Amino acid sequence: NDNYGHGGDVYKNSVVYDFSANVNPLGTPQKVKDAVSQAAEKLAIYPDPYCTELRKKLSREYNVPEKSIICGNGAAELIFQLVLALMPKNTLLPVPSFSEYESALAAFGGKPRLYVLQREHGFALTEDFLDEITPDTDLLMLCTPNNPTGLCVPKELMDRIIARCRETGTWLLLDECFVDLTDEDKAYSVIPSLRENDKIFVLRAFTKLYGMAGARLGFGICRNGEIMEKMCRLVQPWNVSVTAQAAGAAALDCREFVQKTKELIYNEKKYLMAELEKLGISFIPGQANYLMLSGVPGLYEKLLEKKILIRRCANYHGLDEGDCRIAVRTHEENAALIAALREIYHA
Amino acid sequence: NDNYGHGGDVYKNSVVYDFSANVNPLGTPQKVKDAVSQAAEKLAIYPDPYCTELRKKLSREYNVPEKSIICGNGAAELIFQLVLALMPKNTLLPVPSFSEYESALAAFGGKPRLYVLQREHGFALTEDFLDEITPDTDLLMLCTPNNPTGLCVPKELMDRIIARCRETGTWLLLDECFVDLTDEDKAYSVIPSLRENDKIFVLRAFTKLYGMAGARLGFGICRNGEIMEKMCRLVQPWNVSVTAQAAGAAALDCREFVQKTKELIYNEKKYLMAELEKLGISFIPGQANYLMLSGVPGLYEKLLEKKILIRRCANYHGLDEGDCRIAVRTHEENAALIAALREIYHA
Repeated sequence: NDNYGHGGDVYKNSVVYDFSANVNPLGTPQKVKDAVSQAAEKLAIYPDPYCTELRKKLSREYNVPEKSIICGNGAAELIFQLVLALMPKNTLLPVPSFSEYESALAAFGGKPRLYVLQREHGFALTEDFLDEITPDTDLLMLCTPNNPTGLCVPKELMDRIIARCRETGTWLLLDECFVDLTDEDKAYSVIPSLRENDKIFVLRAFTKLYGMAGARLGFGICRNGEIMEKMCRLVQPWNVSVTAQAAGAAALDCREFVQKTKELIYNEKKYLMAELEKLGISFIPGQANYLMLSGVPGLYEKLLEKKILIRRCANYHGLDEGDCRIAVRTHEENAALIAALREIYHA
Repeated sequence: NDNYGHGGDVYKNSVVYDFSANVNPLGTPQKVKDAVSQAAEKLAIYPDPYCTELRKKLSREYNVPEKSIICGNGAAELIFQLVLALMPKNTLLPVPSFSEYESALAAFGGKPRLYVLQREHGFALTEDFLDEITPDTDLLMLCTPNNPTGLCVPKELMDRIIARCRETGTWLLLDECFVDLTDEDKAYSVIPSLRENDKIFVLRAFTKLYGMAGARLGFGICRNGEIMEKMCRLVQPWNVSVTAQAAGAAALDCREFVQKTKELIYNEKKYLMAELEKLGISFIPGQANYLMLSGVPGLYEKLLEKKILIRRCANYHGLDEGDCRIAVRTHEENAALIAALREIYHA
């Protein structure tokens, strides 16, 4: 099994700076680390299969009933679970996008109908897309902000997509795993409008905002009791570890950390974009905590020689060898990346 | 979702002594706790999808190639994964046994053919069972020592079962999750004889021996490359957390702890059996770190009033209201249980 095609593979590479995984550059909040250390004392007991405390807190945080919240061993597990629960025959997937959607479909013998986003439109989803949602479309998988482009679906278009899905009876998996780290997360999330929609599954993660990729904790919000119950039956009862539950509960108390992160990302993204422009490197000006850029051939290898890992995007549908994704990191790291790029580009 | 039918549910009950979950009474080794605390510093990075370090250590420990080892988010996840990979039409399951086998089959629309072990034979598997393994049996699920009876399949019968499965082309899931805590784990495990058998999947866990139920870590050993690869594709790449991988690697260094545990279990089981006999409570003299006993009606509730939680077994196939399972715990705990039983039985 050697076809791991994701960012964050620091196990195989000798790396000083990792720009390949889009997690919080501030790392994990101290409160979360402390919670995990404390949880080490409770490892001998089985995890709460209902994630009671965590779901209670999430319920308050997002103003949704506890029964509409499901926790998973990372958001990725919930993708597999939802696909297995719905077993869609006809799935629509705009690409380029996160590859685990296709992996989940493929695991159970499915294959999506791809809608290829166009480079000449800056990979933005446009109105034309609405016609692709047909009455025989069982499921639409949509990532906002999209990975790797960083683009959010504009609010108005999102409303029309949701309305169209209602007309056609199409399930909507809305992956908002990166929405916390956009400048206007409240504007982009559809969680507030879920009440009237029982065929939307909103996917969220602790991974990115709270620097918890290693802890494995994601959650989904969905008003459809039948599908939520079915999803529960498709996995073992103890899929969310004691440490992950403790980490998640602690993370939700880290409001200052979140504020500090948002400010950092906002400022550093501005810095990175300005420097990339100076270097003449073209990129997609997305809303996320990462940027997709068009690099010179061999950019990945050249940066790796300098012990800087970025994410090659050639294995995404519709992208080429030069397409790369970089995470927005701390200023010191970003400056190191820019310095390395300056050398490579002889600027 | 309120039908959680397992032991260890200390979240809903007010409990001082928990005899309902069969984990190590010594709890989690300090080395493992320390490893988890240290892993808290590495939460921001994604887990190694290949569990490289852990599988390397397991490979040395069990003398099997790394490629024949798969790690999971607890052994329970691997049960679901194996069922999904094999999609057996005809599954044979001796009962009473661990209920997650049936849950895994049911999740994907399957239902086992039950072979009901007889109370009058002390729930032991006998030679008759061999005839149940027919050419149309796709999968046999066997738990040794069995849960909740604590009985191991005798070596000679196991050899005949394996030979019969080879004749009939039947896959064998051999759940050895409790074998570490039997008096003769080396004698009962089939891992040494896997080399010639590529249709056996041996399931193991860190949960019980290392007091790691909350960390979620199990593994499987199987020589069939095709099915191992398929199983990998059926789950997300990051299913085993950074903390679980670190905990597992540390656990494998805890040889003294294991020795101490084995001695404790050996002595305390002798104590419990002797005391149960004195009280006239009948039980199955199994090989595991737990005992199944026939209690008076209402025993579970009466013990719960004394804040002692045991495992009711009425929801197992073939068992009745009076059947209960108790874990072997520390001497102080076991003595408290015996004292409580003495009161209840007015002995």
